[in-house]
Amino acid sequence: MTGREILRQHINKTVHLNDEQFDYFFSFFKPVSFKKKQSIINIGDTVECEYFVLNGCLKTFVVNAEQKMHILQFATQTWWASDYNALHNYMKATVNLDCVSDADTLCLLAEDRERVCKEIHEVETFLRWRSNKGYIGLQKRILSLLNNDARSRYEELMLQYPELYNLVPKHLIAAYLGVSRETLSRLYHSK
Amino acid sequence: MTGREILRQHINKTVHLNDEQFDYFFSFFKPVSFKKKQSIINIGDTVECEYFVLNGCLKTFVVNAEQKMHILQFATQTWWASDYNALHNYMKATVNLDCVSDADTLCLLAEDRERVCKEIHEVETFLRWRSNKGYIGLQKRILSLLNNDARSRYEELMLQYPELYNLVPKHLIAAYLGVSRETLSRLYHSK
Repeated sequence: MTGREILRQHINKTVHLNDEQFDYFFSFFKPVSFKKKQSIINIGDTVECEYFVLNGCLKTFVVNAEQKMHILQFATQTWWASDYNALHNYMKATVNLDCVSDADTLCLLAEDRERVCKEIHEVETFLRWRSNKGYIGLQKRILSLLNNDARSRYEELMLQYPELYNLVPKHLIAAYLGVSRETLSRLYHSK
Repeated sequence: MTGREILRQHINKTVHLNDEQFDYFFSFFKPVSFKKKQSIINIGDTVECEYFVLNGCLKTFVVNAEQKMHILQFATQTWWASDYNALHNYMKATVNLDCVSDADTLCLLAEDRERVCKEIHEVETFLRWRSNKGYIGLQKRILSLLNNDARSRYEELMLQYPELYNLVPKHLIAAYLGVSRETLSRLYHSK
């Protein structure tokens, strides 16, 4: 499938755009490819766009004072990634975004997104539902973190992103789950 | 301020609705008052509406197998509360919602929200931004939980909701932060 087709199918799950509407929206997306480990956003950067992932895997993360990495989110095909706090509040980035693997994306500028939302009501509907889904995903993540059971956190992650099992190095999965590599290793082997 | 005025001011921070548009949207809200400790949503319930808080404080929470309560969110004036996973995905509730104090709210049915979003583009814009803000709030909460430092979690909470200091019993604040009451007590006294 082309990037255009992947985006169209993704949007079609929520709203129907006719050809003219979709082509207009699509005209604002710019293809951008990244290499494994390439940095996309660094803390302190100005953030002007978000990325729709066509293939590969991105991650948003922070590194704390003890040099420990915490992963906020993985983004694989049809996921969106950016620092949304910076993007929506016109602030500097407070999380990093980089590439777990080589990745192809479509990049959308925030100002273009707002413009198309005004012009095409259905695009705004789509983006409202996308945001709702993101909210629900994060709510599940918080409940999972609060419940603090490494096994169920691991199982939830593999259910949510089965492709991660092969795509992502184990130490990054441990950083997402907030467990040590030894704990993760036990979970893998008792699978 | 009346409930109508509180809602109007809240919406006005994001979009401008003219009198006719606002009155139409407002006509779908139903005032509902609750007593302290009253239950609003229980896990397993069908969820049909969300609540805009006019005064008082609600909380969404789960209780784990060891009878330990985890608080997902407090909702005070101008916050919205529901089980959004249930509401958006037409599933049964997976979190509980109840009252930390007596509370007055305005209740909006999901089907009415969707109807008004279709009819008034600006209402959809408002709700998209509300969802974005919610997403960003949860993202901050996750980073705070992952960073796992009780003091900074406590300080962030007090910055986000200064009114909680007087409004919410200490054991509920501990349940939100994911710390013991003893740890919380040390944080209070070293404030």
